[in-house]
Amino acid sequence: MMIREATANDWPAIWPFMRDIAAAGLTFSWDRDITEEAARHRWFPAPPGRTIVAVDAGTVIGTAVSGPNKEGPAAHIATASFMVDPRRFGHGAGRALGQRVVEQARADGFRGMQFNAVVEANTRAVELWHSLGFQTLTVVPGAFHHPTEGYVGLHIMFQAFSPAAVEGG
Amino acid sequence: MMIREATANDWPAIWPFMRDIAAAGLTFSWDRDITEEAARHRWFPAPPGRTIVAVDAGTVIGTAVSGPNKEGPAAHIATASFMVDPRRFGHGAGRALGQRVVEQARADGFRGMQFNAVVEANTRAVELWHSLGFQTLTVVPGAFHHPTEGYVGLHIMFQAFSPAAVEGG
Repeated sequence: MMIREATANDWPAIWPFMRDIAAAGLTFSWDRDITEEAARHRWFPAPPGRTIVAVDAGTVIGTAVSGPNKEGPAAHIATASFMVDPRRFGHGAGRALGQRVVEQARADGFRGMQFNAVVEANTRAVELWHSLGFQTLTVVPGAFHHPTEGYVGLHIMFQAFSPAAVEGG
Repeated sequence: MMIREATANDWPAIWPFMRDIAAAGLTFSWDRDITEEAARHRWFPAPPGRTIVAVDAGTVIGTAVSGPNKEGPAAHIATASFMVDPRRFGHGAGRALGQRVVEQARADGFRGMQFNAVVEANTRAVELWHSLGFQTLTVVPGAFHHPTEGYVGLHIMFQAFSPAAVEGG
């Protein structure tokens, strides 16, 4: 498993599983029929946004996008989104992407990272982020309409990168 | 105090105080030097987004934008943002705008409303939203760099519009 920066050439490998993940409506708060153009625009933001891919045996099997969660006075907290090809689960791509994103955000000087909408029913993701140091700050009740589970919560998760991030000053 | 739908003609009255509020960096997680074009694009979203203004004695003294907080499987939860001309505080514009936004979102069929980033130091806003039925679900620690208070928290607030929104199913 190799993690590297994504390039425009990776898009044809990313879009098929990204489209499937959005269409499934299980994990992402995106329009289920998002257009390829809108998805690409979202996944390849301008700097300081970053896009990486997980490559296994020469094949892109996962990707992550990261950057500031908000702007201006709140731009010191990062956020990130992750997609792993559902046909390639279990190879550690999600964990490897998560570790790299956190390392990079620390190196970039962010003071913490926030996830805004981790689907409660996506226990694989909830457990992974907890194991990587994220805390669930709250679960927004009923905020995600899961196709089989009905209305489930969205975890808001946070990890401080330095005591200063939580102590103020 | 009259609350009505905003039109493009209201923009010249909105932008001066919006620019000042963004530049002050006290309450909004926006670039402090946001361009007029970017601000207008953000404040006048396509439907189902809605924009309203508070008019006092013929003058626009406040405005709100509302719509879905996220997309697809999460599009049933609304969000909103509010700005009141700082020179016109104390006339009830914030409360009147908040009441209208909540009423309208209920009428539009949303199942709840979430505020993603209410600055902890903005006690006027925190108290107003609590009085209008919002609960603070969590405060993201140190997520806002206030120009005089240093790093302060961001409240994430929520109000369910129906028991079903929190019970699932």
